Amino acid sequence: MEIRELGEEGLIRYMKGQFLSKCTTVGIGDDCAVIPNSSGKVLLITTDALVENVHFIRSQISARDLGYKAIAVNVSDIAAMGGTPSWAVLTLALPKSTSCQWLFDFCQGLKDACHAWNIELLGGDTVGSEQGIFINLTLTGHVSLQNVKYRHEANIDDVIAVTGSIGDAAAGFKALQEKITRTQDVNVLIQNHQRPRPHLQEGKWLASHGSVHAMMDLSDGLCCDLQRLLQSSAVGAIVETTQIPISSCLQKVCHENGWQALDLAIAGGEDYCLLVTIAADAFDTIQIDFKNKFGLPLYAVGRICPTPPIISYTHDGHPITLTVPIYSHFD
Amino acid sequence: MEIRELGEEGLIRYMKGQFLSKCTTVGIGDDCAVIPNSSGKVLLITTDALVENVHFIRSQISARDLGYKAIAVNVSDIAAMGGTPSWAVLTLALPKSTSCQWLFDFCQGLKDACHAWNIELLGGDTVGSEQGIFINLTLTGHVSLQNVKYRHEANIDDVIAVTGSIGDAAAGFKALQEKITRTQDVNVLIQNHQRPRPHLQEGKWLASHGSVHAMMDLSDGLCCDLQRLLQSSAVGAIVETTQIPISSCLQKVCHENGWQALDLAIAGGEDYCLLVTIAADAFDTIQIDFKNKFGLPLYAVGRICPTPPIISYTHDGHPITLTVPIYSHFD
Repeated sequence: MEIRELGEEGLIRYMKGQFLSKCTTVGIGDDCAVIPNSSGKVLLITTDALVENVHFIRSQISARDLGYKAIAVNVSDIAAMGGTPSWAVLTLALPKSTSCQWLFDFCQGLKDACHAWNIELLGGDTVGSEQGIFINLTLTGHVSLQNVKYRHEANIDDVIAVTGSIGDAAAGFKALQEKITRTQDVNVLIQNHQRPRPHLQEGKWLASHGSVHAMMDLSDGLCCDLQRLLQSSAVGAIVETTQIPISSCLQKVCHENGWQALDLAIAGGEDYCLLVTIAADAFDTIQIDFKNKFGLPLYAVGRICPTPPIISYTHDGHPITLTVPIYSHFD
Repeated sequence: MEIRELGEEGLIRYMKGQFLSKCTTVGIGDDCAVIPNSSGKVLLITTDALVENVHFIRSQISARDLGYKAIAVNVSDIAAMGGTPSWAVLTLALPKSTSCQWLFDFCQGLKDACHAWNIELLGGDTVGSEQGIFINLTLTGHVSLQNVKYRHEANIDDVIAVTGSIGDAAAGFKALQEKITRTQDVNVLIQNHQRPRPHLQEGKWLASHGSVHAMMDLSDGLCCDLQRLLQSSAVGAIVETTQIPISSCLQKVCHENGWQALDLAIAGGEDYCLLVTIAADAFDTIQIDFKNKFGLPLYAVGRICPTPPIISYTHDGHPITLTVPIYSHFD
């Protein structure tokens, strides 16, 4: 049997079974590994890879944006636990023929990101590669033990919410792939794909509320990531498709190119905003306070229900069937 | 200009210049990043990659050995600082066509190593790869602030010592490359290449001695690694070639195949024993205690002298000129 038959979820399940951590830590399967220490704080560790021709096409993203993104996607994992990032180590595998200018620009992007989130890059490993660029970043962070949020704590009747409009990054990627004309709107989508903004302040703020139950970041698309949250929490969900926040840019570009905005919002990945579940009786207050704090809405998109781990979709309250194309690294 | 012209050392120097850490941490350039905490301990972080066709040939190493080695090489970095390993996160980039059996065996190797050194694998990232297997492991460890050893603290007149015979792993790799007949001796060398033993206990013990000044692990060969130690400490060295410990296996296989044992010992990498500098007046006692403690010798191979960062070689005290082929990832 080949890995493609096992699939990405199968692979993660297998690894989790093999290396199930002792009860002191939450390991494989959440956004970060969580290591409590004696002072009431926890150490967070996350690692993410960017592989050439899998996660990026060298001709389609500047080295500077790629350096920035390598850090941003890990910051998003820290944000998902309610944490603050601190130190990073980097592995950089480069073909010998890579231009030094590419490296200099890549480092500038790393520095932009380190500066933006007050991260110290401490070291790493530089190796040759015969087969394209491979970037791996490991980032640590910290959060108080009482604030750390997991994906396994969703409760029945919780409101499911997202901290930003979704689908832009996937559309930006599609725009690059299909080489469509670069209108101003298209450029905004591409920018969202190449310089994602992790919702770090939003994550910390949400994590400080006891009524926020489960939290994770949206890296692989709403459908795929919500399914993971449901699986971890052993619950189901109803998602109201008309409530899914779609930016005006995405709407316009989809209209002009005959794309389905809802498909991109549900199945597309790399949004790097947060997916949270919040106690129903606390939601209205949190939504208002969130708007006051960040000037941007917190979008309710559904409710947690029994029936793990099924997602039922509705349109204006009427059940609908969605066929969502899911991306897996091993399909 | 291409990366090959910058070279590995040039690349590390550039990165170090770009991300020079604040004084609280020792960053790019040592075996681990060192993060002091308030309780008198430091957190160690190291990361190492194994890239297919650069660090290993899939047909030449079993998946189980590779899993073991992915952890062992990082444990060696923790050993080099005098630390104890604790948690690991793994990135695994696999082509879709990889067999599940390969994955299962690889995980078994990881488990062997986690068990051997009491390491908890907490999670990581699994991604597709279009271009071969890429493995990255980040390992944390801990050590008391007063015991942590660096490569920048060698003093003039220190004795330079290594904790084991060297060159075996390089010869094992050469044996695989040249497909020579698998005698019992050849198998020992190959075993040293594929299942390296990091000198963890030795590192902890040496680190507990104030007269042990500088320490690092031998991953890229004595010549290359000693040069780095000298550069960090702004000193030079005299190495007495007749004192370099060469195993009887290596001697025999070199004799049978017309290889130069000294070249392999000086230029070959992946020995994963430790390179230390020790105050001259304390060396004899430490050498005897080391032998009593571990049942194996601590080998004096030279002395630290001024003239940074030159290594002068002698043979029975007479200066000689060695032309050592150095391996670089970017040449």
